[in-house]
Amino acid sequence: MKISELADAGDVSVATVKYYLREGVLPPGRAISRTQADYDASHVERLRLVRALIGVGGLSLARVRQVLSVIEDGSIGPADVMSAAQLSLYDTEDADTEGADGGGAEPVSQAADDATAPPSPGAALIRTLGWHVRLPDPVVDELDEAIEACVTADIGYSDELLARYAEICLEVAETDLATVPSEPAAAVRQVVLGTVLLDPVLVALRRLAQQHAAHTRLPSTGQGPGFAARPPGEA
Amino acid sequence: MKISELADAGDVSVATVKYYLREGVLPPGRAISRTQADYDASHVERLRLVRALIGVGGLSLARVRQVLSVIEDGSIGPADVMSAAQLSLYDTEDADTEGADGGGAEPVSQAADDATAPPSPGAALIRTLGWHVRLPDPVVDELDEAIEACVTADIGYSDELLARYAEICLEVAETDLATVPSEPAAAVRQVVLGTVLLDPVLVALRRLAQQHAAHTRLPSTGQGPGFAARPPGEA
Repeated sequence: MKISELADAGDVSVATVKYYLREGVLPPGRAISRTQADYDASHVERLRLVRALIGVGGLSLARVRQVLSVIEDGSIGPADVMSAAQLSLYDTEDADTEGADGGGAEPVSQAADDATAPPSPGAALIRTLGWHVRLPDPVVDELDEAIEACVTADIGYSDELLARYAEICLEVAETDLATVPSEPAAAVRQVVLGTVLLDPVLVALRRLAQQHAAHTRLPSTGQGPGFAARPPGEA
Repeated sequence: MKISELADAGDVSVATVKYYLREGVLPPGRAISRTQADYDASHVERLRLVRALIGVGGLSLARVRQVLSVIEDGSIGPADVMSAAQLSLYDTEDADTEGADGGGAEPVSQAADDATAPPSPGAALIRTLGWHVRLPDPVVDELDEAIEACVTADIGYSDELLARYAEICLEVAETDLATVPSEPAAAVRQVVLGTVLLDPVLVALRRLAQQHAAHTRLPSTGQGPGFAARPPGEA
């Protein structure tokens, strides 16, 4: 197909397709003349993936390139696609230069590289659970920062709470995994988009579940801001 | 105590304390002269809460004011504190004017106000589960948008997946609820900060659990990017 047909199939402009070709996130078509190239179904599929990663997934073009390199690395087996796809979502270069961006004064994980230092809370958890996670991992750094914030804010955070959360998240992960196709490109697409897109679903469901659980478990005065059980008109 | 002592206790400058007093997020002290006021432990506690909400929770001062109004509304019972605190995190006025900020062209929930329209996916889920959630709710709108994005991206989203997630999130909520104190101000602090601060913990744990589950359940070629089982030096 012609470049204009490829653009139509991907619901983008020809200029966008040319941009993606220049940036290397779309492979070149088969040259059929000095100015024309032929594109096939694999280009349409790749274009749609790029659009989904950028548009719905909110990834930068540089991040998309990293994700695609995971797909194209044929040596990555199904078990490693998960972590490779996740890693492609992180700026691993930035990981060591954090902590000075306005949050707190002290660097959060200053001892991360010190082999004699005790493990970070996240690393300790991984060890206790016996989880198969490559260390260092940017996600563990993220977990450490999140735990640090909870400890600082004194919101009843405890190791027991963390362990219970981990247990529940393993149920989520098993559910997630059941949806991942075996073909690597489809798997990476699923892992990356599923990671980015399902987080907000879980976050929203947690809040709604909290409302429900609070109503089931705690005494209500009925004076709160209009719950469904008492329509506003029925004062 | 003097304003400078209050500032010290809250680890902020006197100028910041004066700003909070002007903005009404700190109640005035007891006037002891034309230029001096006396502050007590309740001011220190409030100042720390405001700092936590702004600094760790990332809330705006306007949002902090909404949260504080929930705490000060003595008529809100324990069961309703959860939803009232959650609502204080949302710009309810903005909820109806979304959809024009660069994401997609069509408004996501244009039929939300139409009583004859079928319920949104989120509202339908709440109904099916029999969850006690006041509708409309900005969290349900958020859930609907997240579901819409998953459907658009074609990542194997299904009603069964959503129902399973909901079931798991109820376990999270029961865990969360066990940490909420009964005193309203402390409860609101816990709910708001716990909501804001524990989301990233759950998100990170989900990713790590995915890595672990992928390794346990899927065949590995051993060619992936260096898992813990094989230290980098041991090539």
